[in-house]
Amino acid sequence: MFKHLIDIKNLDKQDILNLIRKAELFKSGELHSSSAGKTVAMMFLENSTRTKCSFELAAKKLGLHVLNFETSKSSFSKGESLLDTLNNLYFIGVEAVVIRSGENGLLENTASRLKYPLKLINAGEGNMSHPTQALLDFMTMTEKLGDIKGKRIAIAGDIKHSRVAKSNLELLGKFGAKVKLCAPDYFKDESIKNVTWYNNLAGAITAADVVMMLRVQRERHEQTDYSFEDYVRDFGLTSEKLEKYAPDAVLMHPGPVNRDVEISSELLDGEKGLTILEQARNGAYIRMAALDEILSEGAK
Amino acid sequence: MFKHLIDIKNLDKQDILNLIRKAELFKSGELHSSSAGKTVAMMFLENSTRTKCSFELAAKKLGLHVLNFETSKSSFSKGESLLDTLNNLYFIGVEAVVIRSGENGLLENTASRLKYPLKLINAGEGNMSHPTQALLDFMTMTEKLGDIKGKRIAIAGDIKHSRVAKSNLELLGKFGAKVKLCAPDYFKDESIKNVTWYNNLAGAITAADVVMMLRVQRERHEQTDYSFEDYVRDFGLTSEKLEKYAPDAVLMHPGPVNRDVEISSELLDGEKGLTILEQARNGAYIRMAALDEILSEGAK
Amino acid sequence: MFKHLIDIKNLDKQDILNLIRKAELFKSGELHSSSAGKTVAMMFLENSTRTKCSFELAAKKLGLHVLNFETSKSSFSKGESLLDTLNNLYFIGVEAVVIRSGENGLLENTASRLKYPLKLINAGEGNMSHPTQALLDFMTMTEKLGDIKGKRIAIAGDIKHSRVAKSNLELLGKFGAKVKLCAPDYFKDESIKNVTWYNNLAGAITAADVVMMLRVQRERHEQTDYSFEDYVRDFGLTSEKLEKYAPDAVLMHPGPVNRDVEISSELLDGEKGLTILEQARNGAYIRMAALDEILSEGAK
Repeated sequence: MFKHLIDIKNLDKQDILNLIRKAELFKSGELHSSSAGKTVAMMFLENSTRTKCSFELAAKKLGLHVLNFETSKSSFSKGESLLDTLNNLYFIGVEAVVIRSGENGLLENTASRLKYPLKLINAGEGNMSHPTQALLDFMTMTEKLGDIKGKRIAIAGDIKHSRVAKSNLELLGKFGAKVKLCAPDYFKDESIKNVTWYNNLAGAITAADVVMMLRVQRERHEQTDYSFEDYVRDFGLTSEKLEKYAPDAVLMHPGPVNRDVEISSELLDGEKGLTILEQARNGAYIRMAALDEILSEGAK
Repeated sequence: MFKHLIDIKNLDKQDILNLIRKAELFKSGELHSSSAGKTVAMMFLENSTRTKCSFELAAKKLGLHVLNFETSKSSFSKGESLLDTLNNLYFIGVEAVVIRSGENGLLENTASRLKYPLKLINAGEGNMSHPTQALLDFMTMTEKLGDIKGKRIAIAGDIKHSRVAKSNLELLGKFGAKVKLCAPDYFKDESIKNVTWYNNLAGAITAADVVMMLRVQRERHEQTDYSFEDYVRDFGLTSEKLEKYAPDAVLMHPGPVNRDVEISSELLDGEKGLTILEQARNGAYIRMAALDEILSEGAK
Repeated sequence: MFKHLIDIKNLDKQDILNLIRKAELFKSGELHSSSAGKTVAMMFLENSTRTKCSFELAAKKLGLHVLNFETSKSSFSKGESLLDTLNNLYFIGVEAVVIRSGENGLLENTASRLKYPLKLINAGEGNMSHPTQALLDFMTMTEKLGDIKGKRIAIAGDIKHSRVAKSNLELLGKFGAKVKLCAPDYFKDESIKNVTWYNNLAGAITAADVVMMLRVQRERHEQTDYSFEDYVRDFGLTSEKLEKYAPDAVLMHPGPVNRDVEISSELLDGEKGLTILEQARNGAYIRMAALDEILSEGAK
């Protein structure tokens, strides 16, 4: 059993399968909350609406008390201060804190210094980890494809700024999927090793079982010395391209989609686009599973 | 049965009477929630405290899960983006969204494009519609006066910027009330037809059964080339004027009142002013009725 | 029985002992909410995270409906407007309002003008009163020391800007504690009479049973013509000083601590520092007791 949910790399395969199983049971209505009456705080140090809504609704459906801890990024420029705040929350009665932050390593560093049994859940951190997103993606893929061992997963787009990509790579690697990454040079991340990189979308997605398009995170780009029109032409996915190179592929995207950038509107609004909404639905169940697992009596 | 609650014009008389009846039963404690455990999101794209508190408390008293969807107006400059957000909310488990917006027609346009059975409730839109306000006003009037057919309702003040006035006109028309509108030229709205307009308050309120004063919405005025002192002198209501022209009238106001502008403090703080607080009380029950009606099992 | 919880001076000793007893019973799990289903609004006209979280969690653990009334300070520049808002909240169904404000006397003034049985709870007001803080401090002291009659309580630091100090003085006086105040001249408050003032920390804390350090409220200082380094050297508490002058003293602080200003990190993170977290824990129970007492059926 895991104490916190900070990074996919700290979960073993059985932890992951247990979470997926629990999420499926919440989804089918066969499982009820075993954590009702506990308390969770939401601490979003970066703006978020979808992930926050998803976690908050999951918590409320479990019957948890939810505190929205409002703060500006600046209050926690020093890890010390965050640690003091978390200790305070623990003593007033908070049992878990869902944290989103722009700072890589903040949660792991903080967790290692916690003296009290407060649980931390990562709701997206820096450009490196977003474990509940990878879990909901995995849940969606297994619903569509069964065992993903040997399945061909193409991940394309702004990989450099994407914590979604990194958490998915970690998780997909554990389960033996064959991952191809596709990005223009300015969206590549040299730190990712042992993966096949593609410079063109057609090559990456040909015969893929899953095509996962990533959001172009314009708000995180320091420089914009690339041609946006070229990007859309070369790396934007359309029905025509998908039909030509990977007609049977499951289309995924962590949302929200920049319409007619990563994915064309006609593709998004067609049957293939529905999986992206199913990812959102599974996300709420994954977060219920994660909160319930971490907060229920048996947890250590 | 109505699917959304967007505009009074989409409700027939029976719909309205059912809602009022349901609100009265919640008020008397004879009816309990049939929607507990469902989920509603609050999406206030314009600032509001009173209406938001009223909806939120109504939802909580019904045992609903409430998500406060925080956003800035700018995020939804395009209807497309709002539609994507609503689809996402529906898939994470939200069943109804209460929306306030400054843009006339946004809800109707959005509802017509929804592919999923998410319910929309209008909490005030542009300068044209505010259906729950009209319903709570109607509830209050019928409590005070019984059947409003043939009753004389004077509505006075900043009609141009008032969605309250327009929704009331729509509803009062359905039930055969005799409405008189009163405003200086700069607060008239030429698009309102088939209604008697008055330029002076005495004429409008003489022998009225209800005098409904509207808030001067200074925050919505593009120009202020009128004399505020003249407005207060000519269109502000005092005990003296009310006593002289409509001593038996019910005094109403959608709140919050600009003290000593629309209504003098001595009138507001006296017995006549109490109805304005009763409107607020009825508002919470109307919103309970609307949410419960739209979310309970029978709804389609 | 008290109607509002605005100032320690309005509570008699029995009121205080009843609240502490109720808080201890909530803490031990022997008492359950008698106010579930009631409604409380949180109105924080000054920023606060800890006190707000504490009140909000207390309310949720009691099963109250909680409305977060969001507002800017400016909306209530006139007391009149606040009164209208409170009346409105009462009529929509709010039974108590927790208010934090920067304006001394606002709550007492407002309460005296309320015409309806809405209850007000002070969550910190101006630089003069913070009754739930004094109550949680008293609860913590009596847990550690038993009867505080004759006990030596040293309060040191930025007394001038501290509502915590003033509410504690009021409460400790009622129970016969011997209070010593310690501050540099620029943090003294000449309006506090009949108390021994110290200019040096050693003198104030020598043989104290409790050493309560106050937060330096830099955000409230108009002028900063003192040497911060001198302040830390002369009035900052370290393990060495505490061990030398008051080795058996209970160390307290209302939080959040400015690390290495009022209290050194090594002292804070050691065994002595734990009481400060216990204060936070007791705070949540004190707020449960106060809300439950004020909202439960018997209250008048």
